[in-house]
Amino acid sequence: MGLRKPRLLSAREAFRVQRAFSDLMPLDGCVDPRLRAVVMDVLAHPGSLARAQLAYGLGIRRGLSAERALKLAVAAEYFHSASLIFDDMPSMDDAMERRGRPCPHLVHGEAAATLGALALITRAYALLWEAIGDRSSSGRAAAALVSECLGIAGILDGQARDVHFHREGASPEVVAEVAVAKTVPLIRLAMVLPAVVAGEDAETLDRLERLAAAWGLAYQILDDFKDRLFGSAESGKTTGRDAGLGRPNLPDLAGPRPALARLRRLLVESRGLLQALAAAGGAERWDPLGSLQDFLEAEVRDVAVRVAEQEAA
Amino acid sequence: MGLRKPRLLSAREAFRVQRAFSDLMPLDGCVDPRLRAVVMDVLAHPGSLARAQLAYGLGIRRGLSAERALKLAVAAEYFHSASLIFDDMPSMDDAMERRGRPCPHLVHGEAAATLGALALITRAYALLWEAIGDRSSSGRAAAALVSECLGIAGILDGQARDVHFHREGASPEVVAEVAVAKTVPLIRLAMVLPAVVAGEDAETLDRLERLAAAWGLAYQILDDFKDRLFGSAESGKTTGRDAGLGRPNLPDLAGPRPALARLRRLLVESRGLLQALAAAGGAERWDPLGSLQDFLEAEVRDVAVRVAEQEAA
Repeated sequence: MGLRKPRLLSAREAFRVQRAFSDLMPLDGCVDPRLRAVVMDVLAHPGSLARAQLAYGLGIRRGLSAERALKLAVAAEYFHSASLIFDDMPSMDDAMERRGRPCPHLVHGEAAATLGALALITRAYALLWEAIGDRSSSGRAAAALVSECLGIAGILDGQARDVHFHREGASPEVVAEVAVAKTVPLIRLAMVLPAVVAGEDAETLDRLERLAAAWGLAYQILDDFKDRLFGSAESGKTTGRDAGLGRPNLPDLAGPRPALARLRRLLVESRGLLQALAAAGGAERWDPLGSLQDFLEAEVRDVAVRVAEQEAA
Repeated sequence: MGLRKPRLLSAREAFRVQRAFSDLMPLDGCVDPRLRAVVMDVLAHPGSLARAQLAYGLGIRRGLSAERALKLAVAAEYFHSASLIFDDMPSMDDAMERRGRPCPHLVHGEAAATLGALALITRAYALLWEAIGDRSSSGRAAAALVSECLGIAGILDGQARDVHFHREGASPEVVAEVAVAKTVPLIRLAMVLPAVVAGEDAETLDRLERLAAAWGLAYQILDDFKDRLFGSAESGKTTGRDAGLGRPNLPDLAGPRPALARLRRLLVESRGLLQALAAAGGAERWDPLGSLQDFLEAEVRDVAVRVAEQEAA
């Protein structure tokens, strides 16, 4: 767990995605050195690139050109990187570390960090436009999905509910709802958007939607466990924030055993969805998804060991 | 000066733009009350809507449908509103008042204000997509213009240079350069984008570009004078920030007389560009621009009176 990263693509494909992540953000014309520095910092430390790998892997296996698949993949990842910069700000999680390094706002100041995050968002929209614009019917569906995921009813609402959460009287169901609202949108964007652009049929899209929902919640519960069970050095970001800030944390509120049981149920559900996708044809097409499932199952086993250790202590 | 607003359209058209400004931001699906409150606050207090009026007036007179012209207009204004929310934050201008009211981050908290600004940006992109997507050659030109204005080499670079400005050793030329970088992009978006979408010829686009550049700098110098000469009550926003924060301010750095002279030269230039546009045909098409020119000339006369009063005192 912790700094371990999922490997969803061949080494060659993964390298291609990583290179595109830094190449698709031109810095020409940017004069301000701090703004440049924030963006260059992000480009040099991309994290796991799990969303980009998913989007690229799904897009390319469904016949999108490498160029379009890379643009979708990198756009999803720029949105994700921007959301992390904002989340770590003093007014939100007030975090110190991310990806094993001090957060951008601590190194370059909050103003430059804000503008850097906005630069990533602007560029992500430009890439989406290049990859999707001009394709009328699937283009419209893609644009609607982007608005849903990134808009006021999507990740922004989830993040607002997370920041303004009150623990008193909160049920585990509300906690799960906030987790879904906060985490699912960018996973949907990475998984469902390339499928919409590639013209997958309604049944496939529905399965991918349900898979994104299950994985999104699983991801968030795993993250909550990390915040509780791991030190900052091990997870690469500031931990223990949820308890300190009164943020929603499912293992804290429901107890570790029920949270672990829920995590396992979610992964049983996602395993079933993957099998249904593979049975419907083109099994190798879903390889990147199978790798992510394996990764998440391994993470859950690690968490189970930690929970048992903690109970024994 | 101060709270006086430009009137660029007929009362009926202006009402239509104002209604679209609040109608085109759906809040369905947004659960968090603070996020909703920030956005509703912005929608209820739209400011002068000068950018939206310009964009709508130019678009509709050049034959765009009312729906497309309104979407372009409101998108430009949402980007502008979002930029003001960010600019007023403690890490940037640390302002207290905007549009005669306390800033959103003071009322609803910085986290909600940040997310509200991002919601406006997301919605603005969705509106641009609806208005521009699917029109291949002018659509591509429009997308490129959007990236240029909003991206890392546009307004974000201008804002970064403004925030990180050092007065020591700064020449009036550098100050003017930062003013242009910060203020011109959103005026370009309001004036040039509808013209690009409507398919204006290269000569017209070039004149509009030069007009946006002249007005953008004039706007910023006027704003610098307001910050210096007016109280907060009169201007509707926190004044005296530039001196306090060491921000670029042309009247401060070049002296009020040279700044005033520069302002007048800019308006002579813009008057000439307007005459050239009208001479090339369809004079009534440029009415909204003529009204803005008249407004700016009246503002400059007011400033000249204040400067003379100050010298006499």
